[in-house]
Amino acid sequence: MSARQPGPGRLHDGSAGWPLVPTVGWVGPARDGAVTLIDQTLLPEEEVILEIRDLERLAEAIRELRVRGAPAIGIAGAYGVVLAAGRAGHTARDADQALRELEEQAARLAAVRPTAVNLTWAIERVCGVVRASLAAGRPPGEGCDTALAEARAIHAEDLAMSRAMGASGLPLVAPGARIVTHCNTGGLATGGLGTALAVVFAAARAGRAPRVFVDETRPLLQGARLTTWELMKAGIEATLLVDGGAAWLMASRGVDLALVGADRVAANGDAANKIGTYALAVAAARHGVPFYVVAPSSTFDAACPSGGEIVVEERPADEVRSFRGRAAAPRGVAVWNPAFDVTPAELITGWITEGGIVRPPFDFAPSGPRSGA
Amino acid sequence: MSARQPGPGRLHDGSAGWPLVPTVGWVGPARDGAVTLIDQTLLPEEEVILEIRDLERLAEAIRELRVRGAPAIGIAGAYGVVLAAGRAGHTARDADQALRELEEQAARLAAVRPTAVNLTWAIERVCGVVRASLAAGRPPGEGCDTALAEARAIHAEDLAMSRAMGASGLPLVAPGARIVTHCNTGGLATGGLGTALAVVFAAARAGRAPRVFVDETRPLLQGARLTTWELMKAGIEATLLVDGGAAWLMASRGVDLALVGADRVAANGDAANKIGTYALAVAAARHGVPFYVVAPSSTFDAACPSGGEIVVEERPADEVRSFRGRAAAPRGVAVWNPAFDVTPAELITGWITEGGIVRPPFDFAPSGPRSGA
Repeated sequence: MSARQPGPGRLHDGSAGWPLVPTVGWVGPARDGAVTLIDQTLLPEEEVILEIRDLERLAEAIRELRVRGAPAIGIAGAYGVVLAAGRAGHTARDADQALRELEEQAARLAAVRPTAVNLTWAIERVCGVVRASLAAGRPPGEGCDTALAEARAIHAEDLAMSRAMGASGLPLVAPGARIVTHCNTGGLATGGLGTALAVVFAAARAGRAPRVFVDETRPLLQGARLTTWELMKAGIEATLLVDGGAAWLMASRGVDLALVGADRVAANGDAANKIGTYALAVAAARHGVPFYVVAPSSTFDAACPSGGEIVVEERPADEVRSFRGRAAAPRGVAVWNPAFDVTPAELITGWITEGGIVRPPFDFAPSGPRSGA
Repeated sequence: MSARQPGPGRLHDGSAGWPLVPTVGWVGPARDGAVTLIDQTLLPEEEVILEIRDLERLAEAIRELRVRGAPAIGIAGAYGVVLAAGRAGHTARDADQALRELEEQAARLAAVRPTAVNLTWAIERVCGVVRASLAAGRPPGEGCDTALAEARAIHAEDLAMSRAMGASGLPLVAPGARIVTHCNTGGLATGGLGTALAVVFAAARAGRAPRVFVDETRPLLQGARLTTWELMKAGIEATLLVDGGAAWLMASRGVDLALVGADRVAANGDAANKIGTYALAVAAARHGVPFYVVAPSSTFDAACPSGGEIVVEERPADEVRSFRGRAAAPRGVAVWNPAFDVTPAELITGWITEGGIVRPPFDFAPSGPRSGA
């Protein structure tokens, strides 16, 4: 793994006025290239691009949240399969062994973040084309080219989906709307544009000058570190507040709209998302603030009937005991640190997808995540 | 201002099994003594006792939250009047000038934390006895002795009130009860025992083994730094969680009781308390968790008809942007950082005071804070 500093630290200019973040990508040829990630644990102070040539390093980077957000993790996983296919194609004696090695490595990578359905889905999709290529009798050495083409397609579809989600949510945003959001759902959470923030970007692009209130999102401060950074870079008014303040913001100042992302949406509409989302939904319900989940259809898990079936991972105690490396609590104090919570469908006004605003029962393919807008 | 390290860092043993923290006190004679404070901004890593001989330093310590919590600030203010009376008695030519000087200094001290009604009240009470002493023809030089006796009485009454609040709330705590709390309401917030935590201490003392879930309480992390420290020192089971997690704790694990303090309770029962309290109350209401405000009657402001009349101070942006010097957000990002929020009476199950559990309209003296249990 190597690191390089990007240029002058500006967001890339996306096409037609969309901002674009170098969240995840691939450089070099399929056989000898690298997955690139902007190291999100160093933002906003440092903007460092990692070049990762090794699957274990990629798993570590995902585990350490150097890349996070369901769609971004999925794309990183897809590019990860290119690394795996390259290694298997190089070492395997035959197609069977190549496939076995590829699938072993892919399974290990998928296990890193069990809640993120996109990771499993994207890995499986790329493995599928490699499997088909081997079954068609093509040499194992070509697996990585096949994989890279598919990973790039997933990435391009993600950007198209972000633009489509932005368009779906745009009618909900009045000029000057006061929007509250939680965690990071922008370009850094996806292939470069976002889910909930794509709606904000679409509104800004349409000249509606949205004003965004950003929950800092403890323990890892994705809102404070990442969302404010993206919004400021895009020239959108952003105000940071502590997570416990959002309910009082609604009561004392008024909020027009709450927009959040999701890590997984169950078939009944229950949505798993960063811890604190449920509290925000409860506050929004009390204040009659419309509360929307913005997620691509790949985040909807038709195989999961309700939120009760979603496994919520617990993360290390030190994330809460310390704050950016400084002790914030007595050594050894017990901690409860669930990564996610589950917001029940009854608290969600609507689900904004690349295909429009939907409500359960959802009309998605029963096989789980789909691609394309 | 000087500092000294206390002994082996243990909580003092209070009488009859109550823990006791060296939150605020007075050392030395009235004319040449000092206000003592445990520096709460250094906890839990360092336990440093400040000795403050100068009113401006005391105002600074209160402003910087080296002492915080309504009752503790009140007691610190009361001891502050001893410093002011000592200076006025030393420099004034006559009783009129001494009184003018005392009242000028007292007004400046009271202005440091406008939301904390106890500060104004305690300062006025101590000034009142000095005024009476001067009116009775006693020499200005004796004002500080009169003031110290009154400040010590306020402190002793506070400890008695904490024990009485603990007794009032005890019947609400079943054996093994799961209690959620916000901010710090223990000995560090008061004269040494607490308000909401006094109920927990009373339950522990009665052998009911309460289990306390502690909101970390951003931005200044009083829950993480102070409440967990007090509970661990007292041998009570404490689990730390992020503020945004309390609603999900109620939904996924269950909570029996929410106990919070208050900085000011209006005549209709609306309660101003640390930002995040309102969000907790909203979550408790959704989950049917009884939500109690624990506060001495000195915190009830009969002159304030409702929460709408409570001025909520906004605190510096850097409290949210950084933590102990480490940046948590982009430089210059806009921040909304209200110190308090106001929980409406309709979300509060009951108000636990030194005189029992009460509900509005409150049966308190109309002049505002009273003393004694």
